[in-house]
Amino acid sequence: MTVITLLTDFGSKNGFSGVLKGVIWTIAPDVHIADITHEITPQNIMEGAIALSRAATFFPAGTIHVAIVDPGVGTSRRPLAAHIGDQYYVGPDNGLFTPLLEQAEQKGQPVTIIQLTNPQYWLAEVSQTFHGRDIFSPVAAHLAIGISLEKMGSAINDPVRLLLPKPEKISGGWRGQVVLIDIFGNIATNLNAHLIKDNKNVLIKIANKSIQGLVNTYGDRHAGDVVALVDSENFIEVAVVNGHGAQSLGVTIGEPVELLFL
Amino acid sequence: MTVITLLTDFGSKNGFSGVLKGVIWTIAPDVHIADITHEITPQNIMEGAIALSRAATFFPAGTIHVAIVDPGVGTSRRPLAAHIGDQYYVGPDNGLFTPLLEQAEQKGQPVTIIQLTNPQYWLAEVSQTFHGRDIFSPVAAHLAIGISLEKMGSAINDPVRLLLPKPEKISGGWRGQVVLIDIFGNIATNLNAHLIKDNKNVLIKIANKSIQGLVNTYGDRHAGDVVALVDSENFIEVAVVNGHGAQSLGVTIGEPVELLFL
Amino acid sequence: MTVITLLTDFGSKNGFSGVLKGVIWTIAPDVHIADITHEITPQNIMEGAIALSRAATFFPAGTIHVAIVDPGVGTSRRPLAAHIGDQYYVGPDNGLFTPLLEQAEQKGQPVTIIQLTNPQYWLAEVSQTFHGRDIFSPVAAHLAIGISLEKMGSAINDPVRLLLPKPEKISGGWRGQVVLIDIFGNIATNLNAHLIKDNKNVLIKIANKSIQGLVNTYGDRHAGDVVALVDSENFIEVAVVNGHGAQSLGVTIGEPVELLFL
Repeated sequence: MTVITLLTDFGSKNGFSGVLKGVIWTIAPDVHIADITHEITPQNIMEGAIALSRAATFFPAGTIHVAIVDPGVGTSRRPLAAHIGDQYYVGPDNGLFTPLLEQAEQKGQPVTIIQLTNPQYWLAEVSQTFHGRDIFSPVAAHLAIGISLEKMGSAINDPVRLLLPKPEKISGGWRGQVVLIDIFGNIATNLNAHLIKDNKNVLIKIANKSIQGLVNTYGDRHAGDVVALVDSENFIEVAVVNGHGAQSLGVTIGEPVELLFL
Repeated sequence: MTVITLLTDFGSKNGFSGVLKGVIWTIAPDVHIADITHEITPQNIMEGAIALSRAATFFPAGTIHVAIVDPGVGTSRRPLAAHIGDQYYVGPDNGLFTPLLEQAEQKGQPVTIIQLTNPQYWLAEVSQTFHGRDIFSPVAAHLAIGISLEKMGSAINDPVRLLLPKPEKISGGWRGQVVLIDIFGNIATNLNAHLIKDNKNVLIKIANKSIQGLVNTYGDRHAGDVVALVDSENFIEVAVVNGHGAQSLGVTIGEPVELLFL
Repeated sequence: MTVITLLTDFGSKNGFSGVLKGVIWTIAPDVHIADITHEITPQNIMEGAIALSRAATFFPAGTIHVAIVDPGVGTSRRPLAAHIGDQYYVGPDNGLFTPLLEQAEQKGQPVTIIQLTNPQYWLAEVSQTFHGRDIFSPVAAHLAIGISLEKMGSAINDPVRLLLPKPEKISGGWRGQVVLIDIFGNIATNLNAHLIKDNKNVLIKIANKSIQGLVNTYGDRHAGDVVALVDSENFIEVAVVNGHGAQSLGVTIGEPVELLFL
């Protein structure tokens, strides 16, 4: 069974995510639908882009991901569908797919991006304010039943791209930043673990704290200790054992983090 | 695959919505189940009724909607199942289905309402406090596997109805009210767009603000501007571009909104 | 279709629960997946254990429940899969399954517990911080496609157990405690209804309130009244009609509750 996923900033109160499922199952009755999240901070495209890129690749090949964080709905911003690596993505042209595009380009994977122009695969009436329901979900459902991307519009090669924060080389190491704080208060950075050759002789500096060496996991230290480790996405993470790291350290997204070699 | 939806005020913490799915799949292993929302304000029947009526009709014909906002659980309030238009509804007799009944009556669609009296289609033991689990979910699952409504009880024609707020004619236009505030802070009213013939020569008055003319979408104005537009359900909506309209204007549900023709 | 359920403390914002679904459907494309809850208080094993035991048995025989509240992830705590009664459970060895084990033992149901040691049924790369994704979800999916428990590791008989609060006999009755507060503010206790023979001649004491007799349901009293009743799990519950009992009475989990016979 083909899988369609949903990632939005709709929240769970108003039933909007349920509406997307109704539209999808009306067109494609035999797909699985998975919510990735509906709790992206409203209109925060960067947050949506990072959450999508961290979840999407764990789905089966051929999965169709609908991503809707869409402050420009109803304006001239283009609606897109894309084939990136072995999966499909549908959503507005505002940068939501930037991390996925960069990953695919680094790996030399094929990328096809279509501007959706063929209303045959949309709902009959298209509102100005809910393209998730009227365009993106029906397009995903039509992809699921075998309509090709090419029939849905024309190829483009200039999708909007976010300026993703990249680590920069500094004297003695690298300076990155905090890119995500999870529900446990763990602090994810954009410093990839491949930058490190030796887990012991490194110093992580964040918010006036210096952490020497990486641990393997939280339980290697005592409750309350500030630790650095490699997270499940292979990036350096800072955490407080059994505590809320971000609150304890007073850290928010964008905070600088330094990785220094000793 | 038949779809069963769930709309409740159970929240997501206690696992009650999961229990409903377990009960349903025990009886009907081959249905899709979609959460519409579990975040209706506890015991707020009006809010549940409006959310249900805005989502239900986007589901496939034959979908079975289980709606549980049920302050009267265990009392003499009747348990119901209904066939309204081309879909099925199951829940307590407290007004939850009023907007759907009114819509069907306006369109001349058939309506059948059954008081559930046949315990053969319920769980073997029925608690006094969780009819969602013990009556409504098993009834929905039995509908999904082909048991007819008629076998489940006897027809009634006097379901409890909510008094839905209707716009009233005033000098120079209409006075309606705010019926829903979404996660973005957008303010939905009960003023249907068909009341308007000309998007330009209208004045929307709400909370001491006057908005002249409707825009097509949020992006037609600058961040912070107060705008009025037609929402995705074809009603007049008031919003603050890139802001939280309800908080900015100090508006809550029930607030009067005037539509005046210039 | 086999059902796999998910119960975690991941919250709904970061997309972690979506990742579990992607992993599961990659291995077992034809299962249903149900969220029980992702809102367990982070790292609160007792809360997770109680929520799991209250929901699991309403699922079909053969259901596979993945439970992840896992402060010890990456340490030497053992990963487990178990067959308890007619259902399967997968998760860390930290006590999450204690209430289910006790129930099965009371009923004389068979129990098999396996320490997961065979990485053949895990993801190829296992992180130190996300065994839900790397071990527990793939194991559940492999169970769903018919791999036997025994192939996944070796049997153990000393799983970690929580010390569950039990009612104690006191002069004239029993002293139990509050074990769960639901979204409506209703106060669930560990005093089983079978302790009571006569609903009228009992006195429930909690937080300096005395409640005489049990009612059948909330609607038997007026809004604002404090009532005691038998909840949907057959335990004594205290509630405020149309109100939030726990807030009104100032009660939290662990608060003593006395059941006295008159």
